[in-house]
Amino acid sequence: MTTSTALAHPNIAFIKYWGNRDNELRLPVNGSISMNLDGLFTKTTVTFNSSKQDSLSINNSEVKGKGLERVSYILDIVRKMANINEKAEVTSENNFPAGAGIASSAAAFAALALSASKAAGLNLSESELSKLARRGSGSASRSIPSGFVEWQMGKSEEDSFAFSIADVKHWNLVDCIAVVSSAHKKTGSTEGHAIAGTSPLQSARVADTTRRLDICRNAILKKDFETFANIIEHDSDMMHAVMMTSNPPLMYWQSATVEIFHQVREWRKNGLPVGYTVDAGANVHVLCLGEYAKEVEKRLRELNGVKDVLVAGVGGGAKII
Amino acid sequence: MTTSTALAHPNIAFIKYWGNRDNELRLPVNGSISMNLDGLFTKTTVTFNSSKQDSLSINNSEVKGKGLERVSYILDIVRKMANINEKAEVTSENNFPAGAGIASSAAAFAALALSASKAAGLNLSESELSKLARRGSGSASRSIPSGFVEWQMGKSEEDSFAFSIADVKHWNLVDCIAVVSSAHKKTGSTEGHAIAGTSPLQSARVADTTRRLDICRNAILKKDFETFANIIEHDSDMMHAVMMTSNPPLMYWQSATVEIFHQVREWRKNGLPVGYTVDAGANVHVLCLGEYAKEVEKRLRELNGVKDVLVAGVGGGAKII
Repeated sequence: MTTSTALAHPNIAFIKYWGNRDNELRLPVNGSISMNLDGLFTKTTVTFNSSKQDSLSINNSEVKGKGLERVSYILDIVRKMANINEKAEVTSENNFPAGAGIASSAAAFAALALSASKAAGLNLSESELSKLARRGSGSASRSIPSGFVEWQMGKSEEDSFAFSIADVKHWNLVDCIAVVSSAHKKTGSTEGHAIAGTSPLQSARVADTTRRLDICRNAILKKDFETFANIIEHDSDMMHAVMMTSNPPLMYWQSATVEIFHQVREWRKNGLPVGYTVDAGANVHVLCLGEYAKEVEKRLRELNGVKDVLVAGVGGGAKII
Repeated sequence: MTTSTALAHPNIAFIKYWGNRDNELRLPVNGSISMNLDGLFTKTTVTFNSSKQDSLSINNSEVKGKGLERVSYILDIVRKMANINEKAEVTSENNFPAGAGIASSAAAFAALALSASKAAGLNLSESELSKLARRGSGSASRSIPSGFVEWQMGKSEEDSFAFSIADVKHWNLVDCIAVVSSAHKKTGSTEGHAIAGTSPLQSARVADTTRRLDICRNAILKKDFETFANIIEHDSDMMHAVMMTSNPPLMYWQSATVEIFHQVREWRKNGLPVGYTVDAGANVHVLCLGEYAKEVEKRLRELNGVKDVLVAGVGGGAKII
């Protein structure tokens, strides 16, 4: 087989990944937990052929430079594993709106890891795929398995991979993503991870991770929404606390971000099961039980500064299509 | 002497006080640095007389309950020091607008410590007054000395007091206080200090304090505005990082608070010498060099969510009037 197409979903982390103990291997300083986002996906086709160099097209636009280098880095690992030399043509498309601030690298590198390894004739296990995806983008390791996923930090390169802790059908959670206007440039995750250690608070955040992982994992397994909402907000705030106190400081939140925090907590106090979490950007992921998704979407759309709301349920793992 | 009137200014902390190692004695877990705010003041008159109980009036309204208890607690210490038994009539007024979110307790307890001790016939030294004021409100210890002030945490009750590190005339800094609309109730500082230790980040913040104190003190002494702006923002963000990750979480920031953060950093990048700091509330204190105060006030007034701007230079210490 020399060509293969794979699909993968982005994921939203409930216990966040922030900072590497090895930037090259993308070995994290702490474990993380996430859920895949159904409906949103990246579809990637890899074809090994007689080209003189790797090529990359995303949403029908050719990509060179750093973007291509990151892809070739994964292709090189695959070529070495498969013992082949062919260059590859990679075409990829996302179905989620550009500039919506959904971290696309997780879905992109999960789809690339699966399609490239298949196209090279390899038949990798889920954990091997997770480790391969991790090399392109840490959070991509979590877009390989299905449903609710935990990425164990591991003791070495070998056991730093993600696995499913509960299937898609386990709990009907929905992520209502409030897309917030952002007038300010943001620092990419790769650069952000590299300076996480400059915050005087990072080591305390990391040291406390087992506690947060345990609370979050148990809340998911027991479908305890109140505990779940409190821990995801706490963990998100812990990560942003580190970001905003790093050198240089990374303040990803915008005014609308903070307004949504207050609203979400007020709604929850008044009985609506909602909780927020924010990645390395200004958008707010508002998690709720499925039966309240329409109401949450409606309320978010009424808030100042909310440009759009994307709604996604629990997604499956990366797959060949 | 049985009656005395004193005046004291509030202060704005550049390196923040958050958390006590002894809540009763208000012994802080870390040292702090501040500047008194000229123009804003509390004026307090204490008269020891033959009343059956202490009474308190603030801005012509009688205060009972917890407010009166906190005042009687200080009066009891003074009575013990002076070996008297008379009850006291305390009348106090602030010249800054009610609800403007300027922490009034610092000015209030500094003025009370000075007026009560004088009225009781005591002649306390500056450090003794600072320690007495501290018992009412930790930050009040910093409103006793003049100008730029450092409160050393001390090894015991005896050496936990504040002193001036630079006089009023040393550096023409101005605090432009952006008063921000707040629809949400806030938790008072006393309750906040009590839960500071529940944040997994507090011990790391505290352990890092000497570094921040040294940078800030040196920046003030050298009048190095860029370093000063960076460290006060960093320290403010460190404190709010602890607040928002405590249990229960304290999110004092409002949408306008964060908008001002971004604006202030943008202005500084473009050459305007400004830096922000935020106390236990939503208002943003924007520090600048005196010659830019008019421009900063103007720009702040143009921002959404800014209800008012108060402008204060460097203030003197508490004094008998």
